[in-house]
Amino acid sequence: MSLRETRIEKALLYLEPGPLALVTTSEGGKDNVMTISWTMPLDFDGHFAMATGPWNYSFKALKKTRECAVCIPPASMLETAAKIGSVSGADCDKFALFGLNAIASKTISAPCIEGCIACIESKVVKYMPSAGIFVLKATRLISDSRAPDKRIIHARGDGTFTADGQTFNFRKIIKDKLPPGL
Amino acid sequence: MSLRETRIEKALLYLEPGPLALVTTSEGGKDNVMTISWTMPLDFDGHFAMATGPWNYSFKALKKTRECAVCIPPASMLETAAKIGSVSGADCDKFALFGLNAIASKTISAPCIEGCIACIESKVVKYMPSAGIFVLKATRLISDSRAPDKRIIHARGDGTFTADGQTFNFRKIIKDKLPPGL
Repeated sequence: MSLRETRIEKALLYLEPGPLALVTTSEGGKDNVMTISWTMPLDFDGHFAMATGPWNYSFKALKKTRECAVCIPPASMLETAAKIGSVSGADCDKFALFGLNAIASKTISAPCIEGCIACIESKVVKYMPSAGIFVLKATRLISDSRAPDKRIIHARGDGTFTADGQTFNFRKIIKDKLPPGL
Repeated sequence: MSLRETRIEKALLYLEPGPLALVTTSEGGKDNVMTISWTMPLDFDGHFAMATGPWNYSFKALKKTRECAVCIPPASMLETAAKIGSVSGADCDKFALFGLNAIASKTISAPCIEGCIACIESKVVKYMPSAGIFVLKATRLISDSRAPDKRIIHARGDGTFTADGQTFNFRKIIKDKLPPGL
């Protein structure tokens, strides 16, 4: 199982489904990670939005360093992802606490996380404080096409989560609307 | 099977998972609907973001009327949802073409759609053209707690889709982070 560099256009495949994500930052020599599900694509060119604010410890690092990796954990990592979301990086080293293996990124300082289905190295394009929205651009994608569990997790907002179930293929119906290369 | 008024706080339960949505608008006496999956919550108070632009026929109506209903179809409606996304309202009456039953909304002019798991009547708070993002506020929620199929659909961006599968409950782990009432 290993994460390999993948065509950047494919980042959309991991953002469009509305995944639970582990978002890493690195500031002052300290890596941190938050669990978040408030993201959405903005175009087919790697731009996407993320909503967060000062109530998240990672917010300060994200605003200052303008970099993060958006890592997509499989369903088998859900309990760890939930625990990551239950504590603050202000109080602990989450990588050590949860036994996460950091993988060095190539375009940013914040690390990727081993065991994820995919990690999207990303840079902040702008922050819109009136809406609490960061606009980001994917700068590099690594993904594991052989991951034993590729079920993306979806948070429901009430402490329950679902994993991807049945898959449906409607490429024929919407072929004219698909972005090139996907 | 019927959609009944539900506490507005619960709108988050339908936006947080990253659903495929049928978004209705109504302008000049004509109802329209688009299939979209680029939405994300912004807070626990009913604000959420939606990304769309002039390439969508509904964009003009949304910008002008500043209202829409965000309806969440179950997996059993996926083929219809894909077809809705494959044609433009400029060329046809999608409600007639796809046999959709409109349900009158109470806080907006755009209708809700029968057979959906939930519909969120929403008003535009602001439009941020530099990012192509609408900020909306949920004004009324109707949902069907007895829907025979409550599997939310997630688009993958390449013409394939997944439906909700296995459910996990981690309320105990993240109880301190849950919004009140959920």
